[in-house]
Amino acid sequence: MTHAKFVIPPFDQRAAEKARARQAQLTKPAGSLGRLETLAIRLAGMTGRVTPEITHKSIIVMAADHGVTVEGVSAYPSEVTAQMVRNFLRGGAAISVLARLTGSRLTVVDVGVAAELPDAAGLVKRKIAPGTGNIAKEPAMSREQAWQALEVGVEVVEEEVERGLDIVVLGEMGIGNTTAAAAVACALGGFQPEDIVGRGTGVDDAGWQRKVQVVRQALQRAQPDPQDPIGVLTEVGGLEIGALAGAMLAAASHRVPVLLDGFIATAAAMLAVALAPTARDYFIAAHRSEEQGHGRMLDFLGLRPLLDLGLRLGEGSGAALALPLVEAAAQLHAYMATFAEAGVAEREA
Amino acid sequence: MTHAKFVIPPFDQRAAEKARARQAQLTKPAGSLGRLETLAIRLAGMTGRVTPEITHKSIIVMAADHGVTVEGVSAYPSEVTAQMVRNFLRGGAAISVLARLTGSRLTVVDVGVAAELPDAAGLVKRKIAPGTGNIAKEPAMSREQAWQALEVGVEVVEEEVERGLDIVVLGEMGIGNTTAAAAVACALGGFQPEDIVGRGTGVDDAGWQRKVQVVRQALQRAQPDPQDPIGVLTEVGGLEIGALAGAMLAAASHRVPVLLDGFIATAAAMLAVALAPTARDYFIAAHRSEEQGHGRMLDFLGLRPLLDLGLRLGEGSGAALALPLVEAAAQLHAYMATFAEAGVAEREA
Repeated sequence: MTHAKFVIPPFDQRAAEKARARQAQLTKPAGSLGRLETLAIRLAGMTGRVTPEITHKSIIVMAADHGVTVEGVSAYPSEVTAQMVRNFLRGGAAISVLARLTGSRLTVVDVGVAAELPDAAGLVKRKIAPGTGNIAKEPAMSREQAWQALEVGVEVVEEEVERGLDIVVLGEMGIGNTTAAAAVACALGGFQPEDIVGRGTGVDDAGWQRKVQVVRQALQRAQPDPQDPIGVLTEVGGLEIGALAGAMLAAASHRVPVLLDGFIATAAAMLAVALAPTARDYFIAAHRSEEQGHGRMLDFLGLRPLLDLGLRLGEGSGAALALPLVEAAAQLHAYMATFAEAGVAEREA
Repeated sequence: MTHAKFVIPPFDQRAAEKARARQAQLTKPAGSLGRLETLAIRLAGMTGRVTPEITHKSIIVMAADHGVTVEGVSAYPSEVTAQMVRNFLRGGAAISVLARLTGSRLTVVDVGVAAELPDAAGLVKRKIAPGTGNIAKEPAMSREQAWQALEVGVEVVEEEVERGLDIVVLGEMGIGNTTAAAAVACALGGFQPEDIVGRGTGVDDAGWQRKVQVVRQALQRAQPDPQDPIGVLTEVGGLEIGALAGAMLAAASHRVPVLLDGFIATAAAMLAVALAPTARDYFIAAHRSEEQGHGRMLDFLGLRPLLDLGLRLGEGSGAALALPLVEAAAQLHAYMATFAEAGVAEREA
C-alpha cells in the first residue's frame, strides 16, 4: 500500500453552492433549521450530489487489545474486549441496539483482539497481532503492522462501498484504548497528557494519575514525530486506531461521509488528517464525549459536534445516536417544498 | 371543564428506581450513556413501566393567528399561517418530513387560523376565533375562549390516547406567536421583555425593538397576575398556546411523555405547570432554541434540553428531531444485555 491510496477527491463546492441555494428556497425562515442546514450543504459537497440520499448505512467497529493495560490504566480487565465483541455480535450491546434502531449494517472487525474469536455473522477476522505492546515500555507495533492496520480499515470500507454505502459510522472496542488514543492525540496535536487523558471506562483519581504518567512515559520513550503519523501509530497507537484511520481515508476517497464517534475515533481522525489533510472535509463530529480532552481534539480538527449528552461508551454509540440527525438534515433538504411549490409567501422586504 | 381534569398522577418513583437498578446491570460502564440513562429512568417514572416501549408516536401542531401582527412584530404576513398549515398537510413542511422520517402520526389543529381551511386528512378543525385580539391594545381572547383553547388541546390528546399513544410531540404554527409567547413567559416567569423577546422568524433590529415595546405595552395594559394562568392566557396569550397547554396537561394526566419543542411550546409548558405543577414531571425538553430567552424559560421549568442546534423553526420540528434520541434511550434501556446475560466481566473492584 502506498500513500497513493489516500487520494481524497476535493469537496464539491459547486454541489454545496447549489444545495445552499436550495436551502434558501425551502418553506422555512432562512437559517431556521440552524446546524441542519449547514450539515445538508456539507453533505452535498461531500457526496457531490445536491440532494444526497442516505439509504445504505454501515456501522463498523474495530476491536483490538492493548498491552498497556498491565500498567493498571483501565477499570476493566483486557478479557472484556473479546467478551464485548461477542456481545456486539449477539445483539446485546449498545451498538447492536442502535444498529437495529437506525437500520444500519453492523460489522465488527477483529484487528487485534488478544483472544481467539469463533466465526460469527458480522465478524470480520483480520487479526494483525493479539494486542499491542505496552506503550509505556515498547512500541505498540512494528511499522509494517501499522501499515497493515490502516490497510484493514481500507479493505473493510472498500467491501462496504461495494455493498452500497451512503454514510459510515466508525467505532471501536479495546480495553486500554483511551490511553493509546490520548498518546496519539498528544503526539499529533502537541497537547499535554494531563489536558487530554480522561477517566475512560471509569478509573479513580489514582488510576487517572497513573494513566497520565503512562502517556507521558510513552511519549518520552518514543519521542514521536508529528510529521510521521505512521511513526506515531507504530510507537503509541493501537491496531484498531490504525484500522479506523484507514477506514476514514477509504471512505473519504469514495466521497462517503464519516460520522465520527468519540475520543478514540477522534484520535484516529487526527491520524487520518495527518496522512491526508482534506479527509477532514468528509468528517462529521457526532458528539462531544464526556472524556476529558475530546473537545480540544475536535477543536484541533475544526469540527463541531452535533450532540453533547455526556456519553463516554465508545463502540460507535455516539455516532449512531447522531445518525438520525444526519438523515433528518438530508431528508429535510431533499423533501421539503420550496416557497414556489407550496404557494407560501416569502418574508416581507 | 374544571381543574379536576388536570389531575396528574404522581411520577412513579418505584418504576424509576427499578429502571435505575436495571441501568447499572447493562453491559456498559456505569454512567457511560450519560443523559440517555437519566432519560430512560425518567421515562420509566413517567409511564410507570420499568422498560417503557415507544411505539405509538404522535405529533400535534396547534395553529392560530395573532392580532398583534398589525404592530409589525413579524417578518412574515399573517396569511402565512394558513399557507403553512396547507403545506403541513400536503407533506412539504419540515414537520411533515420529520413525521414521515420518525414514523409519527401528524395532526394539525386549527384552533384559531384567520382563514377558512378546506377539509383535509390530518386536519382537525376546532377554530375558536379567527385569531386573537391585538394584545398591545386589548385582551387576546375572552376568559371563556381561554378555557375553550385548553379544552381543544385536552380533547385532541384524548383522541390520540384512544388510538394508542406512547409519546407526544407538541408544536405550533402562528405568525406573531413568538410575541405572545414572550408575553406569557414574562407574565408567568417574572422576566423582562428584553431578556425574552427574540427575533422570531427573523425581524431586524428595529423590528426587535418594536417587539420588545409591544410585549411591554401588553404587560402594562393587562397587569396579568402570575397566580391566574387563565388570566395570563386571556390577556396576552394565543389560542394555540392555550391548546398546547391543554394538550400537555392531558398527556401528563395519562402518563404520556411530552416532548417539548421550542420557544412557544415552552411558554405553553409554563402555563401548564402554573395550572398543575407536577405536569412538569412528564416534560422532556427537546432542544434549546436559537430564540433569545428560551434558555431562561427552560431554566425556570428546571428542564435541560437534549439538543442545541441553533433551531428556530417551530412546528414541533426541534422536538421531532429529538424523538429518535428518546427512542434510543428507551430501546437501549430495554434491549441491552446485562453483564450476567452476556457473560461480560464487571469492573475490577
